[in-house]
Parts: sequence; structure tokens; C-alpha cells
Amino acid sequence: MNQRKLEVTYQPFERTTRVPPGTTLFSAAHWIGLPIDSTCGGRGTCGKCKVRVLQGATEVTTADHRQLRKDEVDSGWRLSCQARIYEDITCEVPQLLRVPKAATMGLSRLVIIDPNVRKVFLELAEPDLHDQRSDIARLRDALSAEGHEMSAGVAVLRTLPKVLRESSFKITAVLAGDHLVAVEAGDTTEECFGVAFDVGTTTLVGTLMNLRTGMAAAVRSTLNGQAPYGADVISRISHAMNGQEAIDDLKTAVVSTMNGILTELYREAGITPERTYEAVVVGNVTMLHLLLGIDPTPISVMPFTPAFMDALSVPASEVGLRIHPAGYVQTLPALGAYVGADIVSGVLATGIAREDKVRVFVDVGTNGEIVIGSSQRTLATAAPAGPAFEGSQIKCGMRATDGAIEGVQLGDTVELQVIGGDVPPQGLCGSGLVDAVAQLLNVGLLNHSGRMLSAAEAPDHPLASRLMEVDGVRAFLLAEGVYLSQRDVRELQFAKGSIATGIKVLMDILGVDPSDLDEIFLGGSFGSYLNPESAKIIGLVPPVDVDKIIAVGNSAGEGAKIALLSYRERQVAFELPARIEYIELSGRTDFNDAFVSVLGFPNLELVG
Amino acid sequence: MNQRKLEVTYQPFERTTRVPPGTTLFSAAHWIGLPIDSTCGGRGTCGKCKVRVLQGATEVTTADHRQLRKDEVDSGWRLSCQARIYEDITCEVPQLLRVPKAATMGLSRLVIIDPNVRKVFLELAEPDLHDQRSDIARLRDALSAEGHEMSAGVAVLRTLPKVLRESSFKITAVLAGDHLVAVEAGDTTEECFGVAFDVGTTTLVGTLMNLRTGMAAAVRSTLNGQAPYGADVISRISHAMNGQEAIDDLKTAVVSTMNGILTELYREAGITPERTYEAVVVGNVTMLHLLLGIDPTPISVMPFTPAFMDALSVPASEVGLRIHPAGYVQTLPALGAYVGADIVSGVLATGIAREDKVRVFVDVGTNGEIVIGSSQRTLATAAPAGPAFEGSQIKCGMRATDGAIEGVQLGDTVELQVIGGDVPPQGLCGSGLVDAVAQLLNVGLLNHSGRMLSAAEAPDHPLASRLMEVDGVRAFLLAEGVYLSQRDVRELQFAKGSIATGIKVLMDILGVDPSDLDEIFLGGSFGSYLNPESAKIIGLVPPVDVDKIIAVGNSAGEGAKIALLSYRERQVAFELPARIEYIELSGRTDFNDAFVSVLGFPNLELVG
Repeated sequence: MNQRKLEVTYQPFERTTRVPPGTTLFSAAHWIGLPIDSTCGGRGTCGKCKVRVLQGATEVTTADHRQLRKDEVDSGWRLSCQARIYEDITCEVPQLLRVPKAATMGLSRLVIIDPNVRKVFLELAEPDLHDQRSDIARLRDALSAEGHEMSAGVAVLRTLPKVLRESSFKITAVLAGDHLVAVEAGDTTEECFGVAFDVGTTTLVGTLMNLRTGMAAAVRSTLNGQAPYGADVISRISHAMNGQEAIDDLKTAVVSTMNGILTELYREAGITPERTYEAVVVGNVTMLHLLLGIDPTPISVMPFTPAFMDALSVPASEVGLRIHPAGYVQTLPALGAYVGADIVSGVLATGIAREDKVRVFVDVGTNGEIVIGSSQRTLATAAPAGPAFEGSQIKCGMRATDGAIEGVQLGDTVELQVIGGDVPPQGLCGSGLVDAVAQLLNVGLLNHSGRMLSAAEAPDHPLASRLMEVDGVRAFLLAEGVYLSQRDVRELQFAKGSIATGIKVLMDILGVDPSDLDEIFLGGSFGSYLNPESAKIIGLVPPVDVDKIIAVGNSAGEGAKIALLSYRERQVAFELPARIEYIELSGRTDFNDAFVSVLGFPNLELVG
Repeated sequence: MNQRKLEVTYQPFERTTRVPPGTTLFSAAHWIGLPIDSTCGGRGTCGKCKVRVLQGATEVTTADHRQLRKDEVDSGWRLSCQARIYEDITCEVPQLLRVPKAATMGLSRLVIIDPNVRKVFLELAEPDLHDQRSDIARLRDALSAEGHEMSAGVAVLRTLPKVLRESSFKITAVLAGDHLVAVEAGDTTEECFGVAFDVGTTTLVGTLMNLRTGMAAAVRSTLNGQAPYGADVISRISHAMNGQEAIDDLKTAVVSTMNGILTELYREAGITPERTYEAVVVGNVTMLHLLLGIDPTPISVMPFTPAFMDALSVPASEVGLRIHPAGYVQTLPALGAYVGADIVSGVLATGIAREDKVRVFVDVGTNGEIVIGSSQRTLATAAPAGPAFEGSQIKCGMRATDGAIEGVQLGDTVELQVIGGDVPPQGLCGSGLVDAVAQLLNVGLLNHSGRMLSAAEAPDHPLASRLMEVDGVRAFLLAEGVYLSQRDVRELQFAKGSIATGIKVLMDILGVDPSDLDEIFLGGSFGSYLNPESAKIIGLVPPVDVDKIIAVGNSAGEGAKIALLSYRERQVAFELPARIEYIELSGRTDFNDAFVSVLGFPNLELVG
């Protein structure tokens, strides 16, 4: 994976990037956010992405012959989307003739609106005895003249004779990639939608996107209908082990949940499923297996091998998703059995691996998924954290719902932030747990080995009265009936220790230390609630300035929307598995060694 | 269509051909029957088809970089399947390292057994913590190492985890093109079947082919289940005009017929549908529309435009055909609304358009489909003949079944050939009609304008007693209750006149006259029964030596079998529409002029 890289420089911008051999000039430019004109999105058919090679060389391709004049080819012009880089190259990019439509998405990323789904209004020549082309050839020729290549399935052929003749051959062709999804009477180019799904083990989020404007038309989230089969990935897999019928149950459950979301999205936006042509779906590897009815069992046992980790494009009808019946479901690729399309999507949304900045992305949950690196080199891994961050295995732990303490501030008194506002505190969710431990460390009631002081050991502490024993175990009373026990602290130590170790192993491989880190992104819903300061105090993340620790929200959903709106960005997502090295922690001796060393809490005065 | 052609010469064979720009060196060699080694069938992945360009140049392609060493590329070696011809070229073909398996098929054509469906037995490395590739990536890598590229759908992904683990990762991958159709436990390479279907309006023929040996495993034919909806294409289309439900009725009828044939084929060969991975289907344009449930209505009205004429590859499940559920149905392309895939298939089987010989192919039925030409230029058309050749609209006409007179010999007596042997003659089928008319011309009882003599006009003729009048119309008694009337002769004159005119128009465009013709092929089942001498006497075909008139039998079915067994030949079939010019006769003034001139019967003594 640690490939030789080649250097490409784009003039007149003086922008340089290093890419693996075989990357196209178009893709490499896009990777660093430099827009090259294109209406076909890099398929070699529109001819607009031409650049002039000044130093180095790329082969002349068939598409160059088709789209460029001979004198252009001779003087070094190439279609950048076809020109593959096999040596260092400098090329000149012509000024953009039009300002591409763009939107700010994900983490301040400017995304060119250039969706995989395209609508083309055409007034076809009507057939006569001198022009007896078949309906599909007539359509193909007209699309080709506008730079779109196309292949058609039987479903759309069945509609063609009638639609063409009823509309007097004035129609709108709907393309998803180069698949002809539909042919619609008249000009329907204004009505073009797609849906982005983040399929979480717990929660599903669907966003209906207007692919013409790039704006969200409606958003809905709901619990995953697979919940009755278990709360986490492993219990879902356990159910799947009962055979194909059980797998189909799980598939039906999640597809029904998605279709429920779609119904609400369509109602809110006032559109029909027939105007929604594509769904981009991200989720962890198990969720995507179950969505497609594929046995996830081997994911749960050594050596953890999924059936697939590729980006799949599957007919919506085969998935059972209620969008246009000839539409497609597109998944993003995964990096490993436990670093799924949701993380790839998060990487896409945050721009990691494409800039010079060295950044850490952590999505904390039952597993901690970790991505660290820059455009030079990027690594990923998953560290098993156990259920502590989900509020499970914690004495007074609970899910992040009404009544859960999600924030703790200790000083002379105890200040609590409780989900639901005025309700009395009923327990402690993951972010509250992290806060409580961090604050106890801060006020000196917990030492760096994780040992909680007894009231006798800190008699003068303003919070001493809250130090108690429950069933013979030390504990700190947070609210009536809600306390944090010494055992809870140990659980958290193991959970954060595992993730911290994963981060450390990757940083060691990369050869970077905390002072090299430009940013740390906390992903996932847990990351949104986590107090960055607390995460740093307990040593979940490396010790960096707290303003470098940034919660990036539902970055998986953001990435899915980006991939839906931008074919170029989608290509970037497809390339990420080849660009990011996956590190398996199981069986690594350095993991075990490091684990022991980070079980305690850091002395930030020493490192900070 | 009348493109500039480029010349390619293959050394050391000194073989030259002229091809349209953009043709590959591999395909051009195959076009003239010169085998170049290949195991991937021309997909650029096996690297075996390399040739060395001696004069002229072709671009270096990405596949060249992947498959060839740099010094090979520098000294002119190219993968012939990727090297497109844009100027005159001479290249050197290395000696074949293995003798490709071949079979004689169609009209003495040597076909290399190189099916689109390929089985590859693989012993995959089992996964471990150092090799956590997904199941599909593991399989893809192993296939790629053997020169096969592959894409997989969800159906096969669903089977993958179980099959791999139950077989200890020793599996057989089944590829149709680059689609992964199935993964089977163990080595099943010996069991590999496909089916070739000729879907006629009247009769369906299915041949189960062993794709490993190239031999037919079983053949069945039966009547088209659409018969209740009408005997000919036009009445089927009339039914289809009742809407999608009626179209679906017709689809169901033909698919049921095909599935019935398949059941018998499987029984006879002792195999299961799961070992049959592909069906190649040919038929006229209307039949293929109905097979896929596509409205054929516009085919029947001016300007006769089908929904499609392309070669389609459709999932068998979408067609409803009972082969492997993830298998494919492949149709061949058509040349025009009335020159369908059955004719393209016939052209493939006979080798027309690929050799220097100037040849005529005629398939006589309700329409006469005509193809004329050589490797220099080839034309095709359809001439409406009406139902006379099917024995319809003829006083004593009948279909070619038991009791039909299929041959007539007149001298001093009447000798009849009757289908079914000993049964008494009940009527006259098409070939008997042609024979009867030809023989009456021969013995002088019919003049060249088509007028039948009365008994009074030929009192001394040995057959004078058979000249009679029925309902005031002259007639010739062939057998008890079976006669040929003056009106029947007129019907035949119109029918053969139309076809003869079509032939004449094409010959005029090509600039050839009968003395330039090397061969005349009579295709279709009617062609098999037609007496070549009689066809010549009545002027259905141009006046050439009778031994140049050859019945080629079910050439449509033969072509389908060839396309099933040979991916290269299939590519040739796909290219035929671009190579053959379709001429529409409707509205041509020269058609009408010529028609009048050929209504009579030729005076062969003048021309011969």
C-alpha cells in the first residue's frame, strides 16, 4: 500500500500534489480541491476537462482522439479525466468558462454540485423513412451529442415507445452514471432528487436532497427497526447466525425503516418516489451487509473478513428501497471489517488524507474507529472499546435519553447538565461519564492511576461529603440515586485506554507525536456531546490545545450527502481504501504494550 | 455508413483485410478467420494476444502498460485486443502456443471455442489476520491473477460467505463476460452449459450446448405458444396494441414455450438449470420485443421504428427464463425493423460480409429478408412478400405439414412429393407452389407473363387433361382435390416479384450483376425445402448456376450457437449492424419500377 508517489503541478495555480501512479490528472486536481471544468463528471465524453501537459507526458487516449483536434493533441492537450499519471507532470489548466455551482458541506468543504444523477431535456428528431433509428438509438445519439454516454436496461425500454410518442419526442432522460434510469415526457429537469442515508446500528438518518439546487429538501431520523434483534452489531450478527431467514428478517427490518423515512421525506417535500433516482447509503460494514441480505457472520469471528467492502451500485428494486423502481442504491466502500462506509464518509466530509494538515478522526462507540494522517500518508484502525461509552456496564449508566446526565462541572459544588432539561437526573450517559471522571481528576478526587479518594483521604475537600461507599466499592454521588463508582472508572479506563492505544499505535507508525497534530475530529453522535476538554483530560485523545479538538457531528451523513451531490467527490470516496492503510490491532504486540501504558490518566502538566 | 476503410496486413500469413477506423487488430484478424491467442477473449486482461506493429502505429494503452514489459512496448508490441486501427498497419502475429479448440459450425465455418461464459477453478488463500481481504476482493484478486476481470452483483455476494467456507475456499467462479454469475463449491469446470434459442414466429428451436466441449447436448423444437394470438408478426402486434397486459400475455406465452423446451433439454442432458449460465436468443425484431415485454407497435406502422435493435444482455431473472437465476440472456442485434437478429445470426453462420466472395442471403417468408455483399460492402433489406410462400391466400394452400405437396415434377406424368410419405396429398405448401409453377413453365403450360394455357390452347400436351377451370378460373390439377389456379400463380408472381425486386435494388446499388454472384444462400426453414432450380426458374433468385444456390438450413439457430460458443464471433455479430447498410424499400421509386419489370418470369435462355 505504501506506494511510490508521483508529483503533479497545476499551472497557473502553482498547486502541487503527490498521487499514486495511474491517478488521472482530473482526479488528482479534484483531490486537492482544484476545480477543472466538466459536464460529464470525468467520463471522457464532454471534452471540457482538457489540460495542456507542459512537462512530463501522458498517453494519448481514444477519448482524446474523439474529443480533441489533432493540433491540440500534438501540442500537448489531453482530456484530464482520461490522462493517467505515470511520471511527474506539470500541466496548465484553462480558466474556467463558467463558475461551477458549489455548496459548503461537511467541515467547511466547498463541494461542486455535479451529481451522478443527471437530467437532460431533449427534443428528438421524429423518425421518418430516412431516419429509422430505433427509439433507444435515437435517444443514445442525442445524449451522445451532448456528451453523455448511456446504457439502458429492459425496464426503461418498456416505457420508451409510449413516452416518446405521447410527448412528441420531447423528453427528459434521467441518467445515473451511464445507466438510463428513466425517460420522462416533457421537461422535468427541475424535479431531480436523491436521498442520503446514514444507517446506524441504533439510529437511521435520511436526507432528501434536491440534486438541482444542492439543498436538503427534508430530513428525518428514526430508530433502526432491527432494534428488537439486539442493541449492538454483535447481537445483530448473532441473530443472523440463525440462517438466511434470520438475515432476511434483519434486511426487511432495516429496509422498512428506510422506506418509512422515505414516505415522510416525500410527504414533507411534496414529491413522489418516481422523482428520486438514487440513494447513497453509508453505515458500518455489518449494517450494509444486512441491508443487502448478505451474511455478516464472518465479520464477528477471527480473522474478521466481510463478504464485501467495495462501493456497490445495486438496483433499488433489488434492495426493496422505495425510490424510482429503476433507480440505484450506491454504498460507499469500507476500510476494514470494523472501519466502515460511515467512516469513509466521515473522512470525505472532513477532507482528511487530502490536505497537508495532520489530523486525527475518532468515532467513539462500542468500537473506536480511528483515522490519522495527511495527504502524505493516512492510516486507519478500529479499537474495541466495549459498551462503557454507550452508558452500558456502568453502575448508573444509561443511554443518552431524557434524564441522562450528559455534562458534569465540579468545583465547590456539583453542576449537572441533564438531557431533557427540567427532568430529574436518572443516570449517566457516555459523555457524562467522561465528564465526571475528568472533573474528578481536575478537583483531585481521582489520582492518575484512576484510584478514587475516600472521604477520609480528602477530609477538607468541598466535595468530600459526596465520597461514599456502595456495596463496599468507593463511589462519588452525582445526584440523588446517581453515583459514579470506582468500578465505573476502571471500565472507562479500559474503554478509553483501548482507543488511546489505537491512536498511539497509528501515530507511532506514522512517526508523529501530539505536537505534530493539527486537528482532532470527534465524529459520530457521541462525539457531538463529548466535552473536548474532558476527552483530553482522561487521555482519550492526545494532549493538544483544546481548540484543536473539534466535534464534527454526523460526518457520516454529511459525507453521504456530498457523495450524492458530487460525482467527483464520490470518486474520491471510492479511492480512499486504496489511499488509506488499514492496520489490524488484534495480535499486534505493540498494541498490548501501549495499552498497559495508557490505562492510567495522563499528567497533562508534564506533556502540555 | 459508407466509411473510409483502412488496410491491415498480418505477417507471416500475408493476410490483408480492410476495416473501419477504430476496429481492433484482434477483431480485424478474427473477422478474416485468423486466430490470435487469447484466454480473456479480447478484454485486455490476459496479455496473450500481443502482436508486433511493423508498419503504421497504434497508441500505447493502459492495458499495454499493465501486461507488457517496457522494452516490449518500445519495440512495437501491443495487445491486439486493445490496439485500435486509425491508419494502415502491418503487424506480426506470434505463432500460437496452443492449438485453440475449434468446431466446424454454420456453413463450414471453423469456430474457436471461446465462450463468453467461463469457469475458473481456484484454490483461494484462506483469510488470516495478515490477510483480511473481503471474500469478494479475495476472489477478484485470484481471478485477476489469471487474467479475468470481474464485477459481482448482490445475488452472488449473498452466497459467497457460505460457499467459500463450506468448500475450504476451493471454488469454481463462473463468469459471463465480466459478470460473476456464480461461485460453486469445488471444481465444477466440467459442467458448463448454455442454450441457443431461435425464436421464430411459428417455431422455437432450443439447443443446449456443452460450453466445454462445444457439442450440442440436446435439441428441441416446438410451436411458439403465441400462436393463439395470430399466425404472423402483424397479428401478434395487433394483439399487443391492446396495451401492456396484452404485451405481457405475449411475453408470458413465449417465455413459457422456452421454459418448456428448457425442461426437456435439461431432462435429456441430465443436468440442472443451475449449470446453464447463458442463453443466446435470436429472432425477428418483433419476437425479441415481445420476449422482453416491450411494445412492438411502432414496428408495424410507418416509418417502422422499433424500440431497440441493439444486442442486449438482460438478467435471466428479468426475462423469466429458467436458467441459472443469476445468468444472462444475450440477444443479437438487428439491422432493421424487418431484418432482425435471426438474419444477423444467419450472416454470422454463413460468413457473409467477411470474405471476398459476393453472396446473396435470402430468407423467404411473409417477408423476404435479403443480405447481399462481400467484405468490401454489404447491404440488407426486407421485401414484403405476403403470405403466399407460407401456403396462405393460395386456393389449395396449406402449411408445410403432413399431406402438403412439397415437391412437384412434371413430364409426361405428374410426380408429387408429399410431406409425411404415404399420406394422400391434401394441399400445396410454399415449396410445392414454387415447384408447381416452375414445372408448368418448364413444360410450357405457363407462359412468361404468367398466363396459364387452357386445355384448348395445348391440346396435344401430355398433361392437357389436367388443365381445367374452377369457378371460372383456369387451374392445373395436381392430385385429386388439389389444384393450382391462375390466381395462385398471380399471388406467387407478386410475392416472388417483391423479393426479386429487393435483390435487384441491392445489386444495383452494389453495382453487381448475376455473373458477379459467387453464391446464393436460401435461409430459414422454407429455404431448406425450396428447390433451388425452381427458385431460379420462377425468378425468385437471380439466374446463376444452380449449384451456386445453396440451402443453408436453420442458419439463425446455427449463428446463435456460434455466438454462444465463441465470444469473438459474438463480437463480430455485434459489429455487423455497423458494417452492413440497411436499405429501406418503402418509398423508393426504383423499387416500384423494378417491381413491375420482374413480375413476369425470366427467360433463362436469354440470360443463362
